This record gives sequence, C-alpha cells and structure tokens, in this order.
Amino acid sequence: MSVNSFGRLFRFTTWGESHGPAIGAVVDGCPPGLAINEGALQPFLDARRPGQSKFTTQRQEPDQVRILSGVFEGKTTGTPISLMIENVDQRSKDYSDVAKAYRPGHADYAYDTKYGFRDYRGGGRSSARETASRVAAGGVARLVIPEVTILAYVSEIGGDAIDMANFDAAEIGNNPFFSPDAAAAARWEAIVDNARKSGSSVGAVVECVATGLPAGWGAPLYGKLDADLAAAMMGINAVKGVEIGDGFAAARLTGEQNADPMRPGTDGPLFDANHAGGIAGGISTGQPVVVRVAFKPTSSILTPQPTITRDGEATELFTKGRHDPCVGIRGVPVVEAMMALVLADQKLLHRGQCG
Amino acid sequence: MSVNSFGRLFRFTTWGESHGPAIGAVVDGCPPGLAINEGALQPFLDARRPGQSKFTTQRQEPDQVRILSGVFEGKTTGTPISLMIENVDQRSKDYSDVAKAYRPGHADYAYDTKYGFRDYRGGGRSSARETASRVAAGGVARLVIPEVTILAYVSEIGGDAIDMANFDAAEIGNNPFFSPDAAAAARWEAIVDNARKSGSSVGAVVECVATGLPAGWGAPLYGKLDADLAAAMMGINAVKGVEIGDGFAAARLTGEQNADPMRPGTDGPLFDANHAGGIAGGISTGQPVVVRVAFKPTSSILTPQPTITRDGEATELFTKGRHDPCVGIRGVPVVEAMMALVLADQKLLHRGQCG
Amino acid sequence: MSVNSFGRLFRFTTWGESHGPAIGAVVDGCPPGLAINEGALQPFLDARRPGQSKFTTQRQEPDQVRILSGVFEGKTTGTPISLMIENVDQRSKDYSDVAKAYRPGHADYAYDTKYGFRDYRGGGRSSARETASRVAAGGVARLVIPEVTILAYVSEIGGDAIDMANFDAAEIGNNPFFSPDAAAAARWEAIVDNARKSGSSVGAVVECVATGLPAGWGAPLYGKLDADLAAAMMGINAVKGVEIGDGFAAARLTGEQNADPMRPGTDGPLFDANHAGGIAGGISTGQPVVVRVAFKPTSSILTPQPTITRDGEATELFTKGRHDPCVGIRGVPVVEAMMALVLADQKLLHRGQCG
Amino acid sequence: MSVNSFGRLFRFTTWGESHGPAIGAVVDGCPPGLAINEGALQPFLDARRPGQSKFTTQRQEPDQVRILSGVFEGKTTGTPISLMIENVDQRSKDYSDVAKAYRPGHADYAYDTKYGFRDYRGGGRSSARETASRVAAGGVARLVIPEVTILAYVSEIGGDAIDMANFDAAEIGNNPFFSPDAAAAARWEAIVDNARKSGSSVGAVVECVATGLPAGWGAPLYGKLDADLAAAMMGINAVKGVEIGDGFAAARLTGEQNADPMRPGTDGPLFDANHAGGIAGGISTGQPVVVRVAFKPTSSILTPQPTITRDGEATELFTKGRHDPCVGIRGVPVVEAMMALVLADQKLLHRGQCG
Repeated sequence: MSVNSFGRLFRFTTWGESHGPAIGAVVDGCPPGLAINEGALQPFLDARRPGQSKFTTQRQEPDQVRILSGVFEGKTTGTPISLMIENVDQRSKDYSDVAKAYRPGHADYAYDTKYGFRDYRGGGRSSARETASRVAAGGVARLVIPEVTILAYVSEIGGDAIDMANFDAAEIGNNPFFSPDAAAAARWEAIVDNARKSGSSVGAVVECVATGLPAGWGAPLYGKLDADLAAAMMGINAVKGVEIGDGFAAARLTGEQNADPMRPGTDGPLFDANHAGGIAGGISTGQPVVVRVAFKPTSSILTPQPTITRDGEATELFTKGRHDPCVGIRGVPVVEAMMALVLADQKLLHRGQCG
Repeated sequence: MSVNSFGRLFRFTTWGESHGPAIGAVVDGCPPGLAINEGALQPFLDARRPGQSKFTTQRQEPDQVRILSGVFEGKTTGTPISLMIENVDQRSKDYSDVAKAYRPGHADYAYDTKYGFRDYRGGGRSSARETASRVAAGGVARLVIPEVTILAYVSEIGGDAIDMANFDAAEIGNNPFFSPDAAAAARWEAIVDNARKSGSSVGAVVECVATGLPAGWGAPLYGKLDADLAAAMMGINAVKGVEIGDGFAAARLTGEQNADPMRPGTDGPLFDANHAGGIAGGISTGQPVVVRVAFKPTSSILTPQPTITRDGEATELFTKGRHDPCVGIRGVPVVEAMMALVLADQKLLHRGQCG
Repeated sequence: MSVNSFGRLFRFTTWGESHGPAIGAVVDGCPPGLAINEGALQPFLDARRPGQSKFTTQRQEPDQVRILSGVFEGKTTGTPISLMIENVDQRSKDYSDVAKAYRPGHADYAYDTKYGFRDYRGGGRSSARETASRVAAGGVARLVIPEVTILAYVSEIGGDAIDMANFDAAEIGNNPFFSPDAAAAARWEAIVDNARKSGSSVGAVVECVATGLPAGWGAPLYGKLDADLAAAMMGINAVKGVEIGDGFAAARLTGEQNADPMRPGTDGPLFDANHAGGIAGGISTGQPVVVRVAFKPTSSILTPQPTITRDGEATELFTKGRHDPCVGIRGVPVVEAMMALVLADQKLLHRGQCG
Repeated sequence: MSVNSFGRLFRFTTWGESHGPAIGAVVDGCPPGLAINEGALQPFLDARRPGQSKFTTQRQEPDQVRILSGVFEGKTTGTPISLMIENVDQRSKDYSDVAKAYRPGHADYAYDTKYGFRDYRGGGRSSARETASRVAAGGVARLVIPEVTILAYVSEIGGDAIDMANFDAAEIGNNPFFSPDAAAAARWEAIVDNARKSGSSVGAVVECVATGLPAGWGAPLYGKLDADLAAAMMGINAVKGVEIGDGFAAARLTGEQNADPMRPGTDGPLFDANHAGGIAGGISTGQPVVVRVAFKPTSSILTPQPTITRDGEATELFTKGRHDPCVGIRGVPVVEAMMALVLADQKLLHRGQCG
C-alpha cells in the first residue's frame, strides 16, 4: 500500500527530491525475457528533458538513466528493475525566502501542514522533476505492451486549440510544443514567448491516444481502465482535469448523438464512432483509448502574490530563477508514460485472471 | 489487490449483480466505537433509490440495507462491516435479445470479450444498481469524518447549466433533479421529460463540495487526494470526465488569473480564491474540496442502433423496458458517497503516518 | 490493504462474528467460466462442521453456504463471489462473566485494549467460527487449481504421533481425528476423551501435502510461496508454529543430510529427497509441498484460571458450556483451505507476470 | 501489490542482485520528523556484514549504506527513503558450471523454471546478499518504534542448544555466534569450524524477543501480528520454520499447562507465564513477543551432489569458492530487522484505524 507506488501486477515506486543526489524508480512485476538496456529508455527521458528550448525551464539536466538491477545479459529477469537518474543541476541558490514563506498555488503550505516541515529546495518531492522517474518506468512498461502504440500531443495552449483538420502526427516532433498542427505551433510560439518574457504562465491541454490494444483490458469495478487512467493523469503535477473520449462534451449530447454503433468486421467489430474513448464498463473495447488532460498554468510567476510566512505573517512572494512558462508542454511524455504504465498493468492483470 | 475494493485503510469491497438475490459491501478498517445502525445509512440509500419520480427508472427497489457484522450494541467494533441489500424487483422479462446481441454503448461486448460470457440480466455486474452498495458504504464513511460536510448537486443537464447567482442549497432537496437553482430545475423538467417521452436520454454534470476538512489530508505522490477522487468518480457508471477546482477552465487561464493568494487568518490562512479546488500537491489545503463530474447520456434508448450478435452477425437493438432518461441525476448521492469514502480513507492514512 | 483480506490476484475477504446473524466471504479475482454451485462447496464445510462427534464442540451448525453473486448459469463470471453462511445455533446464554472479565489465553484482553470494547458473545470476531468462511472460499480456490491434490491430516495429538509406517490416506476419513494411522486414532480416542471428560484440552499437529503443482509458482522475494503459507497457517486460530519440509529438524542436519539431489526424469527432474518441502527460493520445485502446523490446546478449559476484570480487579474464570477438547482436529479442513487459497493466488500471479 | 515489497503503511521495497552494481531498498510511509542519518543505520549493517570471522563467508563487503532521498536537515520528511548499498566484492570468477547446471537445494532450478532464465552470478536475486537491504530498512523501522527493544540471538547450532540458565544478554556481542551462553559459544566454535574445514554446513535456530510494545498492535484477521511475523521470518533465506511463543511445544501441552493467567498490576495486567509469546488473537498483549526461527544448513557444500544441467542431463556439482558454514549466524541481524519492520508497520496501522 505504498503511496509512492502505482500499479498492481506491473508496479513502480518512485523516490527522490528535486535537489537530492538522485531520483529513481523501482519497477516490480515486469515479465522476464524482454530485451532492454539504458538506450531503450533514454529517448523518452530526452523528450521530457528540460532546457531544450526557450519555452521550457532552463534547468540543465542530462537525465541519464542507469539500470541497477533486474536485467541480465540484456534481458529483464522478472526481478525488480531499479532505475536511477542523478540530479546534476541543483543550482546553488538562496532558498531563504521559500524556506520562510509559502509560494501560493504550490504544495508548500500543504506539505508543511501535513508533515510539519518540508524540503523546500526546488519544491522537494513535489517538484515536477519526479516525473522523470515515471518516464523511465514508462519506458519499461512499453516493452510489456508491444502491441500498443501511444501518441500524445498538445491540443491547446492558453485557450488556443489545434484544428483537427490540420492534424499531422509527423509534425509533433518538429516543433517545441508537441503540436500536431503546424499552424497552431506557430501561434503558440507567440503565446508562450509572451508568457515567458512577462514572467507569466499559460495552461495547456494534452491529448493521448493508445491504439492496438485488444478488447478486454480493464478490471471492473474498482480497477476500471478509465478509473486507472484518471488517477494516473490527475496525479501528474499541475493537472486539474481528465476526460475519457468525449468527456464533458458527452454531458451535452443525447443518447442518440453519443451512440457508438457496432457492425461486423473481419477482425472484430467495427464501430461507427468512438464517443466512449475506447472503454465501456471500465474495459477496453478494442477502439483507440482517448484521454484528455488539463494542465493549469504553473504558479511560478514573477508577479508577486500575497502569501503568509511559516509564522503566519503576511508577506509577498514571487518565483525567482528558472521558469516554465507552459508546464503542460513537458507533460506530453509524462502523459504517454502514465498511459503505458496503466496499460502494462492492466494487460498483466487480465492475463492473470483470465489466462 | 482486489479489483472490487477501493481505499487503503478504510477499504470497502462490493459484490452483486443487478438480478442476483442481493448486492452488498464489506467495509474494512472502520475505526471502532462509532455509533451506527441501519437507520443511519438508510437516508442515503433513499436518496439514490430509483422510481421516486418519473424522471428516473421505474424499477421499484426498497433498498433496505442490513448490517450483518462489525457492529455490537450500536457501535462499530473495528471488524468488517458487512452490508447487504436484497434485490426485490428483478422483473421477469425476456432477455433473449440482449443475451444474443450487444447493446452498443453498454459494457456487454467488453465483458463478453474479457470473461468469455456474461450475466446479461439487467446489465449484471455492470449495472448502476451496484452503486447502492457504494452509497451504503459511503454512509459508514461519513461517520469517520464528522468534521466534513459534503454537498453535491446537479449543475447542468442536457447542456443547460445552473446560474450560480440562483444557488440555494436548501433548494436541492425540493426538486427531483438535485438542483440548487429552482429556475434551472423548472427548465430541466421539460428537458428530461422530453427525453423520457421520446425514449432518448440526456447527460448531466454533478458538482460536489466538501467543507470542513483540515489541511494535510492526501498522500503524495501516488495516493494524492485529487488522484483518488479522480479514480473514485471516473469509476462511477456513465462518468466520462472529472475536474478538480477550475479543471479544464484552468488550462485557459494565466498564472496570475489562476493564483490563490493567501493571507493571515485567525484560524489558519485565508485564501483570496480557490481555483485549485482545495488541493495542492495532492494534499488538502483546508479550503473546500471541489469536484465536477460529467455523466454521459445513458446508452439505453428506444432508437434502434446497429450492433452485432455474439456470433458476429449484424443486427439492431434498442432497450426495452425501464429507462433512466438522465442517469446523472441519481449520480448525486453516489458522488457524495465516493467523496466520503475517499476522505475517510485519507483521514485514517494521514493519522497512520503522521500521528 | 484490507486486513480482513488475503491473497493478491485471487483474494478473499471475510466478515462476521460468532453470534451475529451470519458470516461470509467475498472472493475476488476468480477466473471466469469455472463450473460451480453450492453443492461443490458444501462437502468442505461439512468436514469442518462442529458437533459431528463427541470429540469436537457440540455447537450445532448446519453451515449451509449460499452463493449470492459472481455465478451465472452454473459458472463463475469473473466478478466477486459472495458466500454467506447463516449462524443458527447462537445458544442463548448468560455472557455476563466474559463481558466483565478476560478469559486468559483468549483474545479478550487484546481486543478490548485495541478497540476499546468487544463483541464478547462466543468470542465475536476472534471465534474459530470464522474459519467456515475460509473453508468456503477454499472450495472456490480448489476449482482454480484442478492440477493440485491437497491432503491434510492430524499427525500428532497430545504429543502422541502417528507412525508413518502405518500411513494410509484412505484411513483419514474413517475416524473422527483425520488420522491416517488407524492405531494412532485408537490411542487418540482415549486421550481426547479424557481431556473432554476432565474439561481439559490437548494440542495437535496437522500436516498438509499438496501434490501436482508445477515448478514455478511463488513470487520472490516478499510473496514467496513458503512465506505466504506461513502467514496463511499462522493466521489460523490457535496455531503457534509452521514448518515447511523438514522445518526445525532441518536446523539439526548437516548440508549433506539436508541435500535434495536431482536426477534427470522423463517429465522434469527427479529428486532423491524432499527436505525442502517442495519450495526453493520461495518458488515451487514441482515436488510435493509439505507444511506442518502446530495447534495449541484451546484455552477454554473447566479449571478456573486467575484473571482480571475489565476494571482491573482480580477474579477467576473458567469456560462454561460447549467445549472443543482438541481444536486442532477441526483445523484439518481449514489448513487444506488455506493451502488451496495460497496456491490459487500464486498460480494466477505466476500467469500474470510470466504468461 | 509489489511482490518485492513488505508492509502496509510502513512499507519497504528491495531491489538488487548479488553481483549487480548495487542493492537497495525504498522505505515508504515513514513518519516525518525522525532524526536519522547514515551513521544511525550503519551499525546494523556492520552486524550483518560478512567476512568478520572465519565462521562466515569470506566475501568482503563494506556495506556502506547511502540515503538518497526522504531526509532533509537530518530528519525524515515523510517521503520515500531510498537506501543504496554498493556491491564491491563481486569477485570475478568462472560461473560456467552454475550457468549450465542447477545447484541442488538452491533456487537455481526454481528460478529458471519460473522465469525462463536467471542471473546465476552468486545466486542473483536469491542471494542472501539482499538481506543487507532489509537490515538497512530495519534500521529506519527502529526509529519508528523507540518504545520497543529487540534482541535476537542464536539459541542452537547443529542441534546443540544454549542453556537458558547461562543466558547473559551482554555475552551476545562477545562471540562470533551471537550466543547469549558463553559455554555454548565455545562448543559451537568446534562445530562450525569442523563444518567449515570439511566443506560442510550446519543449521541453527535464532530466537528473537521484542519488549516494550504495548497491547493492541496487530490487525486481525489477515494482518495478525503473528501471521505477519511468520511471513517475515519464513521469507528470510534458508528459513524452514517459525514458532511464536511455545510453538510446536505448545501442541504437546494441556490447556492447563499452556495457560497464561493474568493478575492485576500497577501498569496493566501481570501474566504468570508467556506461552503465547505475547500475542493473542493476532494482537499484542503487552508481554514480550517471542519468535523462534529455524535456519537450514546452507546447500553450498563441497561434497559433490547429483544434479541436472539446464538441458536435463545428469551431472554433479559442488559449490566452489566462498562459503558460509552456518548461515543462521548472520541471520540474527536479519531476524531483528524483520521484527522491527513488522512492528513499525503494525504500530502505524493501529494508529491509523484506532487513533
């Protein structure tokens, strides 16, 4: 019941703080015999890595992942896979202001109240830096589900959405925003750059689509595939909303408009639509699984905000130093990782119960 | 790792199918010494009970809950509390059509693919009838968190939202829609009645606010309060989206607009706003916890839909018999129950680790 | 993390007290499609049932098990199986003495200290009556592992052991002691009858052998097959010791004496010996799994014992009424059930991770 | 449900193989604010460390533990504590024989059958080296239960038991056998040295006593304190038996002989005896908790044993190189660590449910 673990049969546990010596994850339950090495995991970490454009935080972290256990002669052994990423750029700075006062919108006050004190350096455990561990673990999860293709992208920044008519998956890697719409990417450049220059921040929406998984994954009633995805995504830093399929839009449809009629196909049923986002009764239907995730604008802004000190005195704070004007952008590889982690677990769970 | 269980220290397991002899829940981990009897749980079941107006399904179920264990001389003993609700109105009908073909939008196809066959009577395990067990368990959970007040209501039906200027909590119990806005309730009457008469269905949004809980509940990083709530709500039948605080709207704000500044108060900090919905870093801040849940329109409509038989042949199906034109309405007591269950668990978890 | 649950993928939760209306178990994770009905479970309950000879307690319980969910058209559906057994013979008696004072050697004092009060009627939750739920759940588990044969028997009563030269499995059902040695059974009759007549009690050792399971079940390092068995057996009422294979005797051997040499066989390796009891590194080797379980004499004796009241005053107590002179005898079906439950879980767990 | 994790609220996960770069543990759920540093953990690792006398394996490992997370300014923060111990003395040797054939009595065959292949270097994951991680985690657990004193010692080697009349706790640290009886230690020197010289091995029994814990710890029915201890101890390498209190000897007593009468005391009840080993109904009684653990002789002996190759051919094997003539000796700090880990978890669990 470790609260720093996620998953059932395929289960990972993360550890580490923003400014400690390292962060890491232990992946337990991985099937044996899968070909793996550090090179297979690194590309996912590289995609999440900060400091790659002016649109993300300038912290420089090579994020080199090391495999410390669970692999022998290039294959998983079925024993725990320990992954470690050293923290390199723990920039020496003066933390006296955040040590003494709570940054509004951050976890500072909540952690302090819960635990009595906190590691305030760079956000400590609540820093988005921890998501590197998830991305590494997600790389292992992908090996478990080779039948699945996962694609995430930013669909909206600062309220400006992509045009699905422009959707081009090949475009996603061509811009610093993971945008599948080149025109939107061009517009976002101005939006994010303005936010960056003015010390402000903007929110974003990330969509993730998983294709190739068969019908039958998901464990009703309290291990439903959609409930697992909701927990996985809502647990990512700065996320405030999760939708499956049509999500909130479905609440505005009639039953007829929301129907996903089925017809015979050569290889399983064909569906006329996918309002349900590939999940019915908590179980995959074989259609693409579609998730949408809302990232708030980061609370780290240069405009001073009223707040209180640890002693309860009024003060003002603004976030000095490195800055992520749109934290949702780097959420894309994290959302993909969480999708992979959920699906790997549900695959094994299904195999365990249903053979 | 029972997939029909939810919670960690305060944990419940549900069992039962729509047309079996009974449904029930086993609640484990309840603290000892709490005053309880069946009368304390029944009001919550009565609120969820079907057949109370023409706007919900006409199935008639008294939903009388029995306590079979874990209580002695009117108090919880700390041992498992077994709750049972008999199924009374399993109307005798002809299930041959749903036995042979899959109702589109329902869990029929997914269950059949996962398990090889299914109890097709009334939806079997995937029926919303199971939520009565959650509501009963939620009644126990409320006893664990007397400091918390939970209030849920319908905020939108068929795309028609309440006006927060009209918000009146006292109104919620005065109309069959759990609407805090009398004017909206009047409009919804027509919307839902039209759907009912035409054999159609409409979606709804339910909001839930919990007040009174202290700062410090929530177990980062993979037992975050918001992640737990997301899983709890997304796991309710027909739910397709979950938001905390401003949710997707936060993705359209700037950091300044989304700020929740803090000021000194006599009894903990005062917040100028609650965009965060009472949760930061996965931990409660002491502000009201705000969750919004999207219910799709039920797939049980009278318009025939193309579908396939178990043998893969094309056919058409429509849902005969009893009908819930807006399943979100009866979601209100279920959302409240899940909120109570999550909070009770997080309270005990916090006490366990942090004393 | 329900503490009234056991198992991982195949997981059961029990509820109920000795003198409540019923006891029961919810079995989650059972594979779908297994033929089952109440008649398939009843024989195991009948074997455990009290009042069948003068050598066990005279409480009369028909122990009729009902299946309330998870079964459709005679097959498991993959959803939770709710099993219920009504309490019939809750003999009306005066509990004022045990309500006020602690029976030494029983759980009375410990429960009272932990929970602040207790259901004292017949031992409440700590009564051996709960093991009927385990036996019912074990009946379901057996369906999951048809390849395995489980045989338990009493090997020692009151320090008088069977002679393995007399071992005859067919004899086990022929005497009220589950003895595979007819001569020992004859001797035990006097031992147990003397204990019964004098209001005393005697201890027993139960052995259990599971054959037919393949090599490879067990989940190192903290889900080892032997560790699971140790927890399962030590958790049975009145058990004070558990051995795997040679157990404590192995501590008196040399490495040469304790060796289990292997030789090629037509159907997997042949072993020259089975000191290890069929488990190495926490994983089954394909040899018979051998467990030995020590039951203390029940503390319910007619000789008054010094004890204290709830108020801390000195007093004396003896156990009035129905009496089990050798509680280990009825432990045999319980030990078998726990073996089945552990093996079913490990089988599914292995299938989940290793395919 | 990580099978490489143990505990519920206080939960640790270990990783690492005998000949990988490092081993480690992640401890989750530790209360915040406890003073800790590496120096507080090192003494426990030093006690377990190999190569300190000629009576244990000659592998030279400094076993320096590093804390990588969860600690700030010398105190636990409530977040996961990552502990790492580098493997230093992975002696380069020829593993071709163990790679090709199975050492009888070891986990080689079982691992190979389960996972399809194995890391055969020094036993891989099944090596007793992993217990260093448990000892480190146990050091953290001790901080959680300052009210408890844990004392383990060897009570028997090669069938030669200590004389309780000679018991002197101060003696335990004075001899290489953790013997509380100086005379026994002198005799064991010859026994173990003979085993060492002849390439044989001998078994041992370790006893562990925990004092100072209050009544009320333990979570019936499937998280009983004794069941947890049984799982914890049976999961240690080479362990084949576990007893609580009188254990198997209790099976030879009458109810009168086994009674633990209670009398009023100034600070809780006084008990005339402790046959129960401090646990009733799975809950601590406040008496000392007494556990006895049987270690088999290690299977690594110089006498060649018949075995089979991975291809199923007959061959013979003996264990070359470093050798532990009595593996139970180094089990003492591991047994203590597991006792601490179980008690820390039960303390938090009790606090969580019962406040």
